[in-house]
Amino acid sequence: MQLGMIGLGRMGANIVRRIAAAGHTAVGYDRNGPHVDELGAELGDRFSGTTDLPKFVAMLETPRVVWVMIPAGATGAVIDQLADLLEPGDIIIDGGNSRYHEDIARAQALRPKGIHYLDIGTSGGVFGRDRGFCLMIGGEAEQVEYLEPLLKSIAPGVEAAPRTPGRTGEPSPAEQGYLHCGPAGAGHFVKMVHNGIEYGAMAAYAEGMNILHKANVGKQRDVEHSAEVTPLEHPEYYRYDIDIPEVTEVWRRGSVVASWLLDLTAAELHADPNLDSFGGRVSDSGEGRWTLDAAIDEGVPAPVLAAALFQRFSSRGESLYADKVLSAMRQAFGGHHELPGK
Amino acid sequence: MQLGMIGLGRMGANIVRRIAAAGHTAVGYDRNGPHVDELGAELGDRFSGTTDLPKFVAMLETPRVVWVMIPAGATGAVIDQLADLLEPGDIIIDGGNSRYHEDIARAQALRPKGIHYLDIGTSGGVFGRDRGFCLMIGGEAEQVEYLEPLLKSIAPGVEAAPRTPGRTGEPSPAEQGYLHCGPAGAGHFVKMVHNGIEYGAMAAYAEGMNILHKANVGKQRDVEHSAEVTPLEHPEYYRYDIDIPEVTEVWRRGSVVASWLLDLTAAELHADPNLDSFGGRVSDSGEGRWTLDAAIDEGVPAPVLAAALFQRFSSRGESLYADKVLSAMRQAFGGHHELPGK
Amino acid sequence: MQLGMIGLGRMGANIVRRIAAAGHTAVGYDRNGPHVDELGAELGDRFSGTTDLPKFVAMLETPRVVWVMIPAGATGAVIDQLADLLEPGDIIIDGGNSRYHEDIARAQALRPKGIHYLDIGTSGGVFGRDRGFCLMIGGEAEQVEYLEPLLKSIAPGVEAAPRTPGRTGEPSPAEQGYLHCGPAGAGHFVKMVHNGIEYGAMAAYAEGMNILHKANVGKQRDVEHSAEVTPLEHPEYYRYDIDIPEVTEVWRRGSVVASWLLDLTAAELHADPNLDSFGGRVSDSGEGRWTLDAAIDEGVPAPVLAAALFQRFSSRGESLYADKVLSAMRQAFGGHHELPGK
Amino acid sequence: MQLGMIGLGRMGANIVRRIAAAGHTAVGYDRNGPHVDELGAELGDRFSGTTDLPKFVAMLETPRVVWVMIPAGATGAVIDQLADLLEPGDIIIDGGNSRYHEDIARAQALRPKGIHYLDIGTSGGVFGRDRGFCLMIGGEAEQVEYLEPLLKSIAPGVEAAPRTPGRTGEPSPAEQGYLHCGPAGAGHFVKMVHNGIEYGAMAAYAEGMNILHKANVGKQRDVEHSAEVTPLEHPEYYRYDIDIPEVTEVWRRGSVVASWLLDLTAAELHADPNLDSFGGRVSDSGEGRWTLDAAIDEGVPAPVLAAALFQRFSSRGESLYADKVLSAMRQAFGGHHELPGK
Repeated sequence: MQLGMIGLGRMGANIVRRIAAAGHTAVGYDRNGPHVDELGAELGDRFSGTTDLPKFVAMLETPRVVWVMIPAGATGAVIDQLADLLEPGDIIIDGGNSRYHEDIARAQALRPKGIHYLDIGTSGGVFGRDRGFCLMIGGEAEQVEYLEPLLKSIAPGVEAAPRTPGRTGEPSPAEQGYLHCGPAGAGHFVKMVHNGIEYGAMAAYAEGMNILHKANVGKQRDVEHSAEVTPLEHPEYYRYDIDIPEVTEVWRRGSVVASWLLDLTAAELHADPNLDSFGGRVSDSGEGRWTLDAAIDEGVPAPVLAAALFQRFSSRGESLYADKVLSAMRQAFGGHHELPGK
Repeated sequence: MQLGMIGLGRMGANIVRRIAAAGHTAVGYDRNGPHVDELGAELGDRFSGTTDLPKFVAMLETPRVVWVMIPAGATGAVIDQLADLLEPGDIIIDGGNSRYHEDIARAQALRPKGIHYLDIGTSGGVFGRDRGFCLMIGGEAEQVEYLEPLLKSIAPGVEAAPRTPGRTGEPSPAEQGYLHCGPAGAGHFVKMVHNGIEYGAMAAYAEGMNILHKANVGKQRDVEHSAEVTPLEHPEYYRYDIDIPEVTEVWRRGSVVASWLLDLTAAELHADPNLDSFGGRVSDSGEGRWTLDAAIDEGVPAPVLAAALFQRFSSRGESLYADKVLSAMRQAFGGHHELPGK
Repeated sequence: MQLGMIGLGRMGANIVRRIAAAGHTAVGYDRNGPHVDELGAELGDRFSGTTDLPKFVAMLETPRVVWVMIPAGATGAVIDQLADLLEPGDIIIDGGNSRYHEDIARAQALRPKGIHYLDIGTSGGVFGRDRGFCLMIGGEAEQVEYLEPLLKSIAPGVEAAPRTPGRTGEPSPAEQGYLHCGPAGAGHFVKMVHNGIEYGAMAAYAEGMNILHKANVGKQRDVEHSAEVTPLEHPEYYRYDIDIPEVTEVWRRGSVVASWLLDLTAAELHADPNLDSFGGRVSDSGEGRWTLDAAIDEGVPAPVLAAALFQRFSSRGESLYADKVLSAMRQAFGGHHELPGK
Repeated sequence: MQLGMIGLGRMGANIVRRIAAAGHTAVGYDRNGPHVDELGAELGDRFSGTTDLPKFVAMLETPRVVWVMIPAGATGAVIDQLADLLEPGDIIIDGGNSRYHEDIARAQALRPKGIHYLDIGTSGGVFGRDRGFCLMIGGEAEQVEYLEPLLKSIAPGVEAAPRTPGRTGEPSPAEQGYLHCGPAGAGHFVKMVHNGIEYGAMAAYAEGMNILHKANVGKQRDVEHSAEVTPLEHPEYYRYDIDIPEVTEVWRRGSVVASWLLDLTAAELHADPNLDSFGGRVSDSGEGRWTLDAAIDEGVPAPVLAAALFQRFSSRGESLYADKVLSAMRQAFGGHHELPGK
């Protein structure tokens, strides 16, 4: 089967590599010529590419299957261009991190032209090439079924995890690592919630590790003399120097919090035990915010996911004004002075 | 009636001033001679003082009433000294910010000696002299009753607020600004929760004002190009330059969030509209932590009070390690680099 | 000056009463005839009304000033009708709880017709008639200035609160209880954040009072035998029976948490000390959600406001599915059974 | 090597089974005779047991190694009894869920008698028998080293997870699944934080899954007419019927949130797709609370862990009083009636 890929960055290229390895062929488009050439050199006759979009479309067999794998901000414009170049029966896939609202609008806009639209939330990051990509798909069932040969080769496959007890017989698509989640937008919706969970789980580890990190606070004599905080009632309870890299390692085996995120954390801490290479400003890329927007719209409580998101905002200094307001109040009623440069 | 006051700092001196103004007399003790002399010069024959503790005790009429108003960390040692100097029937009051656990222990330790113990959580801050102090009292009912003449003169009095609809007849003690809350520790317990609420309410204002402060974020072109955050979907919704000092002023009249804290905030913002005199590191003084400890022990959810406390910790940089852990994870799975100095 | 009021429910009628009391006149419209008639009987020649919208418009002097004070869901349709009936130079005011997004759109839609649009966030609730309404205004400065005579009579006036220290001379509009916050939408934006703060402050009180409510948990023998929770380590610390109505009363005088919300809470608790007349399901009316949406868009942390909103969702049972997921996990790894009906 | 095990419940028996399978022998004590007999029948000459504590001690080779694996509430009394029966050089291990404070006190109390004390936080739950137990150890290094043959057989072993990139040579103890974390209490401290993280991660999944669960809220017509909530602005965004069991399955392969907890969740959902067998009241067993206490003492922000704990409290109805307070306030200022039975 043939796949057209728009965007040969890390994610796009790795998807192409996986389908090529499975015996399929790919046609690639990228504005960046060397990206095209390098992949061609690597994959031989399984790949041909171009930096010209109409030519790219012309190189595809019909019905054309075009997977768009570019930054979310640029996706809309490219899909608009494609809409003019493609024909009824062709399929556009948005594999990037678009908000699912846009999928609903795009699917609706493409329907009169007879062009099918799938949104495929794609998880796996830099490890996806070897580990396979987890695919969460929104759109029409017929197109999902048609694309199954490609989806199977991109997804991790059933052997990537032990089968869930009670599941027998032919593995379901979900067991193979791809799932048709519902109509247009459902794929990005499920991927969005996935990322929201990711924010919360990451924060749970980070907070716990911070508590381990400060477990020696009872050894610090100056803490007791700080004007900023109440003195420790029981310093004798906080005299541990915990080796956090080793703790993350031991938790990888047999514990309840074993996870892929923990595996990665253990690797980072092994390479940089004090995390000196990081500055502590944590970005957020949209999905965490949108997950919270959805929770609010649905009237569903999400205090953990919210706390995780807001901690990222705080890490970037965004609570500064609020903190100054608190200091102003404290000065007003208690005569406490919390000045700059302190 | 006569009151002995240990500690003639701002709070102690203002309490003495209020009882003197009401026609009572006071004997004062402070290690700092000038504190004693100044209050003597101000209050004339209503006040006599000393820097010698045994002399202080000797100057008091029996049954002695000794109000200890010193930093919580020093209170225990002074009460131990007093226990040796006082006689059965005397009364010790801890008006400071002790944890109520200590009140329970102290009352128990003083009981065999026949010395009574009251814990009086005292709210009012620097405004207490004029506004009166809100008194939350733990201990035996008999002593609270005995001290009513003094308590009435320290508390704000019924006229400090309009009577609650439905309350008629002789104003209750609570309506006059003092309340016997229960046995030993109950006063500091109620004061502790009061401060916990204060943390939460302060944070509510501060967060809201931060949202007003950033209401112009859609005007900033660079936001859209930041790698740290997802672009604003609707910059046209965030093009307001809100005059926050005026907003706090307008809310003081007729709005649901009118409060004494808001009055103070409006005054601070009038004096320093951009809060430039504050650095953004917010201290916490114990009660917020203890309130949360109590919530946890009781199994009572307190997500707002917890968030308020933790935001103070974060304002002092205490989330840094956790934030680095998040950056390490993001680098591991997504190849994102969040470096120092960024 | 004359005001046209659409919607003679509690809020609309009270605004009319206030302007009438100040010597202005009003023309009213309501679909409900008796509402119109009753207000006419009460206010005499200061008020005339109708149940017919075109007639209402005809009764107004030009430039017409039309204040729309109806549920947010119905406001849009009425403004559309008005747009066809009014003339260039007329002024429409939305005093309800519309989302500020709509104000931006409406102002833009009305501009080509020469009709001015103001959004006035109006706080005060059932007490506004006597206490005055706090007015937060968005729109063009010229119209705000033109309406000042009316705004002054609706707002509480400077005497409603002591002047903020440092403020002298002619009171600013904010000191009189109304404020021009910025262009279209700014009034509802500030009102929205006001309500967000209200949610947070309310939750702070509620959580603190719950901690007081459970301060007797150490007296309950069964707690120690519950399989659901870990036993209390120090039951001796939780043996207080706190009289919560009296506590709210004592906090009204001299304490840091004194506020109008606390005044109301004390009144409710005086009338119903155990709050038996409430079921514990707490509604939310939009502004809390929108405040959080704004915080997320701006990248501003709002953990307290979020926790307050989510607790309302939880109070309505909206966390049930999440709680079942937790029970399922606990059963899976620990063999704990948390069954229905337990 | 020989191990004495006190408590032959699920955890204790599974530890015995693992060391027996590795060629070691065990002596068991349980008050419940059949527990002793069944394990004897299963393990033959690798196990001998008794229901008499002095006899148990007499059956052990010196230096005796006694692992206490009973509910935390009963552990103290048993260790006191053991302290009288054991001799200098013997080793007591608390493998249960004691608070680390107690470990510090116990180690100190046993030191004068020459009895060594180790605290071993043990994670693994009902799966530990096959999967191995993750062991977090506090105490003296000499004893940890002495016990390594037993620890290795209880722990999962290095093959239980792929080696962390960069780790080479002889696997460290942590890589084998056991870790000496520090002096007395350090093992239970690390285990406590582990469970705190577990609470947070569990809540992250649960909240996300609740958002998926309600993704069809835009299909429900009645939502729009509910008085309790603001109407959905965009019902068209919430018309998904997500198959949550399949989503948890697809996330197990290739996604960032793959974890052992997710494996378990997928299994539970496969067996009971609607979670009908759960009532939604979620217990908490101490460690989550203690983790939060530690965060507060250390001054470390833990908003996610706090939110996770408090949600469990709420699931058991513990926010009811707070919710009634909110309703009372809403009635007071807005005239909203939120009655029982609604």
